[in-house]
Amino acid sequence: MQKKLLLSPGPTPVPSEALLAMAQPIIHHRTPEFTEVFNQVQEGLKYLFQTENDVIVIAGSGTSAMEASVSNVLSPGDKAICIRGGKFGERWAELCQAYGVEAINIDVEWGKALDPQVLADCLTKNSDAKAVYATMSETSTGAKFDIESFAKIVGNHPQTVLAVDAITALGVMDVPMDKWGIDVLVCGSQKAIMLPPGLGFISLSEKAWGFTESSKCPKYYLDLRKEKKSLAKGQTSYTPAVSLIMGLNETLKMIREEGLTNLFKRHATLAAATRAACKSVGLKLLAKDSPSDAVTAVKSPEGTDATQIVKKMKGKYGMIIAGGQAELKGKIFRIAHLGYFDKCDIFSAIAHLEISLKELGLPVKLGAGIAAAEDVFLSE
Amino acid sequence: MQKKLLLSPGPTPVPSEALLAMAQPIIHHRTPEFTEVFNQVQEGLKYLFQTENDVIVIAGSGTSAMEASVSNVLSPGDKAICIRGGKFGERWAELCQAYGVEAINIDVEWGKALDPQVLADCLTKNSDAKAVYATMSETSTGAKFDIESFAKIVGNHPQTVLAVDAITALGVMDVPMDKWGIDVLVCGSQKAIMLPPGLGFISLSEKAWGFTESSKCPKYYLDLRKEKKSLAKGQTSYTPAVSLIMGLNETLKMIREEGLTNLFKRHATLAAATRAACKSVGLKLLAKDSPSDAVTAVKSPEGTDATQIVKKMKGKYGMIIAGGQAELKGKIFRIAHLGYFDKCDIFSAIAHLEISLKELGLPVKLGAGIAAAEDVFLSE
Repeated sequence: MQKKLLLSPGPTPVPSEALLAMAQPIIHHRTPEFTEVFNQVQEGLKYLFQTENDVIVIAGSGTSAMEASVSNVLSPGDKAICIRGGKFGERWAELCQAYGVEAINIDVEWGKALDPQVLADCLTKNSDAKAVYATMSETSTGAKFDIESFAKIVGNHPQTVLAVDAITALGVMDVPMDKWGIDVLVCGSQKAIMLPPGLGFISLSEKAWGFTESSKCPKYYLDLRKEKKSLAKGQTSYTPAVSLIMGLNETLKMIREEGLTNLFKRHATLAAATRAACKSVGLKLLAKDSPSDAVTAVKSPEGTDATQIVKKMKGKYGMIIAGGQAELKGKIFRIAHLGYFDKCDIFSAIAHLEISLKELGLPVKLGAGIAAAEDVFLSE
Repeated sequence: MQKKLLLSPGPTPVPSEALLAMAQPIIHHRTPEFTEVFNQVQEGLKYLFQTENDVIVIAGSGTSAMEASVSNVLSPGDKAICIRGGKFGERWAELCQAYGVEAINIDVEWGKALDPQVLADCLTKNSDAKAVYATMSETSTGAKFDIESFAKIVGNHPQTVLAVDAITALGVMDVPMDKWGIDVLVCGSQKAIMLPPGLGFISLSEKAWGFTESSKCPKYYLDLRKEKKSLAKGQTSYTPAVSLIMGLNETLKMIREEGLTNLFKRHATLAAATRAACKSVGLKLLAKDSPSDAVTAVKSPEGTDATQIVKKMKGKYGMIIAGGQAELKGKIFRIAHLGYFDKCDIFSAIAHLEISLKELGLPVKLGAGIAAAEDVFLSE
């Protein structure tokens, strides 16, 4: 017997409660039964997003929700600032380009965060920018961005909205949408929400809804104003992914039971233990200055292709970690710890990492990583 | 105990084989394991679409695939002919409008089909139309359109493509994409494919792929050329709805085991039995001239609001049939028989319809509908 452990930053493991809910006979969506579930889901999403605003549910991946953040808010010819510190930051700029929006790119070294002052200066220089597109947890590098400060800066510009990809941040770290004043907040189902991929989520502030009124980008399936109207009736405009929504109702219940404070603390501890363990076995972290609690990006030892470590972990031990993407391919591997994760998973990941490194002939003191993780857990 | 029977034209019942496959632990999509399943799915879809072309799989509803048929093929300012004989025909025109495409509408009385000569004449008059958008099985009226003839007509116009919404037709009636020369064929998961909603499918002919090269509509999530490249590597461009694809692999296996000939015959027989039964209990069919084998739309008896029949069937007997949409609201009810359906389901639907009509005080000879359905089955 060999158990497989999904340690990738999405999809993440799905709890049995959700799998079983999704395995129930399908129900029709234009019924009071569906609306009852959908209204419960809406309450759960508002709790998770920490907002009084509607949270629109899209049958689509997180990228579809990112696209909706551009196509519903801006018009061709508009200017937008895109913070690019990894693969997903770059996606914002690609989306702007697709819709004829002029992207002013703030490029950040992959693995680093952004000094908020750089954004403030850029926005002063480009005061006609209608939107700032940012990433809270850059999944490709494991870096966390200071969204609270970004929101303060953008909040001083009444003609600009802040849109945040929180796909691997929401449900991991504190992202109080309303309190911070985030205008557009985007998430996906297959991360800390503990579901299979197939749902995108997007919430807009009153300010952002105002922008949608003058937006001239073409849209139909991702028309958020139409969805807002449907939502008021406990419905979606087009056929929703019913089974995923049934699963969502279960995972949102789990999240409410755990409570946001515990949820963030659990993720912070698991992430701290992972980082401490990796350092203790002699590895270096990519995003050491501002690490995300969702995923830890680890540099491969000098002279070792990270792909070998990923292969060993997966092929021999069923530990499915992720490699690097684009320019980081072969240079890093990533261990995720977001969603349905506890200490067992971290111990499994770290212990298997220790023996994998050993088998690859790399210097490692067996047990050193586990000891470091244990220290973190004991000091909780 | 009261069993619930989902007799709506989508979502339709999902077989246990698929429900259980979707309840398995989630796997990562950037793995050989996923690619193996995805390649199998691709073979199954080609069999179902009767095409040698790729079948793109979208995490989204059928509407997302319809949108892709416009945004990838046309450019703003283009002209397109939209055949509108119901709610879904109208959706084509709405999509064209959303993308700045001039829609030449051929309006057909709801419940009727279209004389192909009308399309031929319209196309002669509008020879600059880049596309014809049609619906094979108009779910809102239960009418079937003569796609084979439409394809012959459009086939004579090298500058025009034929796009067909086959969302409730595919897997029900014969739609040989390559043989007929359909350029764009669209489907969704929650119909005869026997899955929960959340997947859209779209296949393009070589001619239609040619059109995508000059298309200037903005798109990102629904960029089919990008998806085609990913498909060649057994992947999707954005995170796929993994669990639905696992279920899809199961239902496509079931479809291949039954075989297209048996599949079409089963649906034809179930539909014929439903129509005969409804007529035998004294009801009139809406689409009597050209009925779809996916769904039977039945006129409510004079003076009776169809909503009452739908409510009685559902509330008292767990038979979830659909009412009329838009202008047909209150005037018709619809019994679907596409996907995971056999004779048991038709007997249940008809017998419950008989007692529901009786209870509503309408004249009905108990057993007459069942007798008519039995006659159809006996003459198979």
